[in-house]
Amino acid sequence: MSQILNSSFAFCQPEVVLDIAQCKANIQKMMKISRQAGITFRPHFKTHQSRGVGRFFRQAGVKAITVSSVSMARYFAEDGWDDITIAFPINLREWEQIKGIASIAHLSLLISDETSLWKISELDFWNYPLNFFIELDTGHGRSGFRCSAEEILPIIRLADENQISIKGFLFHDGHTYQTHNRDEIRKIRMATLTMTAHLLRDLEMYYPGRKFLYSIGDTPSCSIDNRYEGIDEMRPGNFIFYDLMQYYLGSCTQDEIAVRLVCPVVAVYPDQERAVIYGGAIHLGKDFLIGPDNKAYYGAVCFHGDFIQWQGQYPIAILSTLSQEHGVVKARRDFLEKIHAGDLLDIVPVHSCLMISAAQRMIGTDGTIFDTLSANFRMDL
Amino acid sequence: MSQILNSSFAFCQPEVVLDIAQCKANIQKMMKISRQAGITFRPHFKTHQSRGVGRFFRQAGVKAITVSSVSMARYFAEDGWDDITIAFPINLREWEQIKGIASIAHLSLLISDETSLWKISELDFWNYPLNFFIELDTGHGRSGFRCSAEEILPIIRLADENQISIKGFLFHDGHTYQTHNRDEIRKIRMATLTMTAHLLRDLEMYYPGRKFLYSIGDTPSCSIDNRYEGIDEMRPGNFIFYDLMQYYLGSCTQDEIAVRLVCPVVAVYPDQERAVIYGGAIHLGKDFLIGPDNKAYYGAVCFHGDFIQWQGQYPIAILSTLSQEHGVVKARRDFLEKIHAGDLLDIVPVHSCLMISAAQRMIGTDGTIFDTLSANFRMDL
Repeated sequence: MSQILNSSFAFCQPEVVLDIAQCKANIQKMMKISRQAGITFRPHFKTHQSRGVGRFFRQAGVKAITVSSVSMARYFAEDGWDDITIAFPINLREWEQIKGIASIAHLSLLISDETSLWKISELDFWNYPLNFFIELDTGHGRSGFRCSAEEILPIIRLADENQISIKGFLFHDGHTYQTHNRDEIRKIRMATLTMTAHLLRDLEMYYPGRKFLYSIGDTPSCSIDNRYEGIDEMRPGNFIFYDLMQYYLGSCTQDEIAVRLVCPVVAVYPDQERAVIYGGAIHLGKDFLIGPDNKAYYGAVCFHGDFIQWQGQYPIAILSTLSQEHGVVKARRDFLEKIHAGDLLDIVPVHSCLMISAAQRMIGTDGTIFDTLSANFRMDL
Repeated sequence: MSQILNSSFAFCQPEVVLDIAQCKANIQKMMKISRQAGITFRPHFKTHQSRGVGRFFRQAGVKAITVSSVSMARYFAEDGWDDITIAFPINLREWEQIKGIASIAHLSLLISDETSLWKISELDFWNYPLNFFIELDTGHGRSGFRCSAEEILPIIRLADENQISIKGFLFHDGHTYQTHNRDEIRKIRMATLTMTAHLLRDLEMYYPGRKFLYSIGDTPSCSIDNRYEGIDEMRPGNFIFYDLMQYYLGSCTQDEIAVRLVCPVVAVYPDQERAVIYGGAIHLGKDFLIGPDNKAYYGAVCFHGDFIQWQGQYPIAILSTLSQEHGVVKARRDFLEKIHAGDLLDIVPVHSCLMISAAQRMIGTDGTIFDTLSANFRMDL
């Protein structure tokens, strides 16, 4: 966070503040990486979930985006985005909604198991400009087919038989989030490139000349690794804001973290090395890191408007526990003696995506207010 | 969950379903406990955050409620609730909002540190029908003054000098949530009653005849302990729905859990003993329990519409990881072979409060739709 809020908000409640200049710098950094790799940049919009922030990407020349739900696809399609990949296993129960969006934008959908493929074959998909990708599980162990010709060939054959045209393969190396350093992240990237290269080679034997796209995700590996052999597209999302988790993975510097939660202080107990803020699990989510005392912590705590500043391995003040609305700050007495009930503290989040998802708006350092999907969410009956 | 949904929703997206009959039974159970103890029942509304569910309480004769934020106080005050305690350290930055609500309802506010008391003394509090409580820390270690006459007497004196009339003491034994069985919960209740009895006796020496109210919180101790000596009021909240955490603490039976998240299945991998649902951290929160394999899990998984059914210590199917929108189900092959992409699964949440807080609505088993605060939230500039 290198920019001070250029506006005078009251900060009555926990508020997300965005460093606009840094967000734009983070976009440029990732665009440069994709340009150098010669691949398509299809940023994931689940991190910011905001049309306003989406427009920064548009201004930077981005034309294709990724989202993680049908609702999110609709939210961005209605703001003029025309090329949207829903990087989530197709939810067959939202077929009507998907078709609705497909009438205003080009959608790419994920097939992640065989039943889904069978069920799609019975739907009226051919009337809509839909692309289908096969999701590969390249080691994350969440969703997708195993990345082997043995598993994939019958799927492509079945799709072909049903006139479902497979555009390519999509995979997300989410296991990079379980690593401890950049070397481990690079090993995962290497393993994935090896797997996909084998698949590419095997498919070329069966379908010579037929082009399949390979789309890779995850901010950690896209931030630190420049190997993209055989890859056509990258879909990182978190990099727009980054967060503490990314910092400790080695994906970003402290300065590149472009978001924080500004929270009212409601009680301070210097002699107990503790303070309480209005800002809890419903604002930050409960993702955590492990501190030097082997205990979980939920955010780094800074004086309001201060840049992130700690030099050692750990923040000097942390969020040690979160209740529904309470956040408990643990810090040394000399830190706590400088703040009082009624003041503000800034929280650097462990996981920015979950924090933003809970927010109805964000405030830019230039004073702009950014609505999020949460504020515009409509459930279907 | 003893009642099947009496309606035909499409369940396109994760939806919270409430067993209405069980909610009402849970209310009656807690009303009976308070009646037998001869104390005021002031249920905490942060669990359901819904005017519709609030009306069940009103129909049952409840007149006084607890909330955990100023926004929540406004939401319920605008639905006609007139006696509201904001059981959260007073947020001085919302003073204007507090006064606004005080023009339509009687509010009780918490003073949790000395600075807050000083700052209140400089505000125009006397023009409004506000009550003040001193928050006590009876062992939870979150917010409040230590429960001793030595600490409390100077605070009462300072309040008196500033015409801030202290109505009583409020405390929340949140450390009951860190226990492992009913005996440990009873020990905490005993310790708290001993502490508050000492305070009561000491204050009687200094302020003979002056009545202070003692208000106790937390669902675990209110569910299983019937000792309320010296206590005037109870504020449990979670009991309206209960959840897996409460079940494992011994606060409730499986049948008393009145809420679940109904989620679309999007991919199934029986040979990998895994399935994926649309239902993730943004729907359930990330509170977890520890399973037999010493790993975290985030919910129990049931077939849609089935009652909770496991007999052994652990559910037969669990949510083993949560991403932003993905939930990963871990279960045996024979369980997974019965479900397919496009089906529904029901999730019994680990922590119902966080799940509801993330939801914009709930669906009752009688077909009623309940809006929540999230759908009605307005931020102030």
